[in-house]
Amino acid sequence: MKAKELMDKNFVYLNCDDTVIDASLAMEDVRRFTCPVVNENKQLVGWVTSFEITKGLRQGNDKISEIMSGYEEISTVHENDPASKAVILTANNKFVTVPVVNDDNQVIGMVRACDIVELLSELYDIKVYKLYEAMQHQLKGVTWDELMAASALVSKKTTGVKISPEEYEDNIMNSTFGEAIWATGGLEKFFAGLISVGEMVIARKVGKAKK
Amino acid sequence: MKAKELMDKNFVYLNCDDTVIDASLAMEDVRRFTCPVVNENKQLVGWVTSFEITKGLRQGNDKISEIMSGYEEISTVHENDPASKAVILTANNKFVTVPVVNDDNQVIGMVRACDIVELLSELYDIKVYKLYEAMQHQLKGVTWDELMAASALVSKKTTGVKISPEEYEDNIMNSTFGEAIWATGGLEKFFAGLISVGEMVIARKVGKAKK
Repeated sequence: MKAKELMDKNFVYLNCDDTVIDASLAMEDVRRFTCPVVNENKQLVGWVTSFEITKGLRQGNDKISEIMSGYEEISTVHENDPASKAVILTANNKFVTVPVVNDDNQVIGMVRACDIVELLSELYDIKVYKLYEAMQHQLKGVTWDELMAASALVSKKTTGVKISPEEYEDNIMNSTFGEAIWATGGLEKFFAGLISVGEMVIARKVGKAKK
Repeated sequence: MKAKELMDKNFVYLNCDDTVIDASLAMEDVRRFTCPVVNENKQLVGWVTSFEITKGLRQGNDKISEIMSGYEEISTVHENDPASKAVILTANNKFVTVPVVNDDNQVIGMVRACDIVELLSELYDIKVYKLYEAMQHQLKGVTWDELMAASALVSKKTTGVKISPEEYEDNIMNSTFGEAIWATGGLEKFFAGLISVGEMVIARKVGKAKK
């Protein structure tokens, strides 16, 4: 996924000569706390947040050029950069938005923290039983009940707590990938548990075939 | 993970009688675009964003009570709610922050979109080879080279493109879980691919044991 596929195109941009009052109205209208400032060729030259606007309104500044942050202070991503670059910038710098530029340094969109949350939370919200369905589909000839029985055994081995295959099924029907990762203590451990289930199922299949 | 473990405690809160000017200074100082308004018992009674502040400064409003949103318009999470509730609220409503309250409806923190991005991106950024290490650890007696050879075969089967075990290893060393999910077309498919590798490795182990 590229930055341009994740960006919000409904942003406001300002010019150096815009008044602080007009900028505040535009930002309220589109409900954006941050705004790129561009020149006549729509190239990025500065940056304004609501903090500069409130300060400018208090001080009675007239033009955006008097209050904006300079170009050198802005972090950008290129439209063809991987989306993950914008994610990392946002996470490390606690950004609300990261501007997306093209080859000519024109601002063509903004990656917003809330859009990243939406994207990542879709992954986080996948139900665990979907992964078991994928596993069953992959391990041809294994029934759902065999999978649940193996899972209950692996769970007992790992946690020391006895659980029936039916209880196990109830658990995974209602829990998400995100919850499972937190519950098991990380992606690697969650994944190791699933591999362990797969291994047990295959061992049982091989055992049956021998008989 | 609970909402209280994810929340930011370094927030500003306002009172109804605070002036708009003082509020703007406080929000600039801590760099927060959103602020809960509380009563004398620190209970949530209203909400202010930089949009209300800029409007209030333009209009010459004096007190926060004149510009704040009412209590009924605020979405909150309880400190003991699962963190995922704040994630879903943020994703669905494009929030920048969600206030966290206790049993007495006192605001004790704020979950920010950028903090959620940081949390979720840690998961997203895990290197794929870490999952292979977990798989190798789980499938006792399997070497890393056997795992790479099986992976190259599964990859060829799935994509139709021939790849050497060495090339495969290079790929997974440099790619993240997030990238792998996008590349394979979703978590379930990515996971099914890994199960398929595990299956092949086990089949080879069983084959060797028979000889």
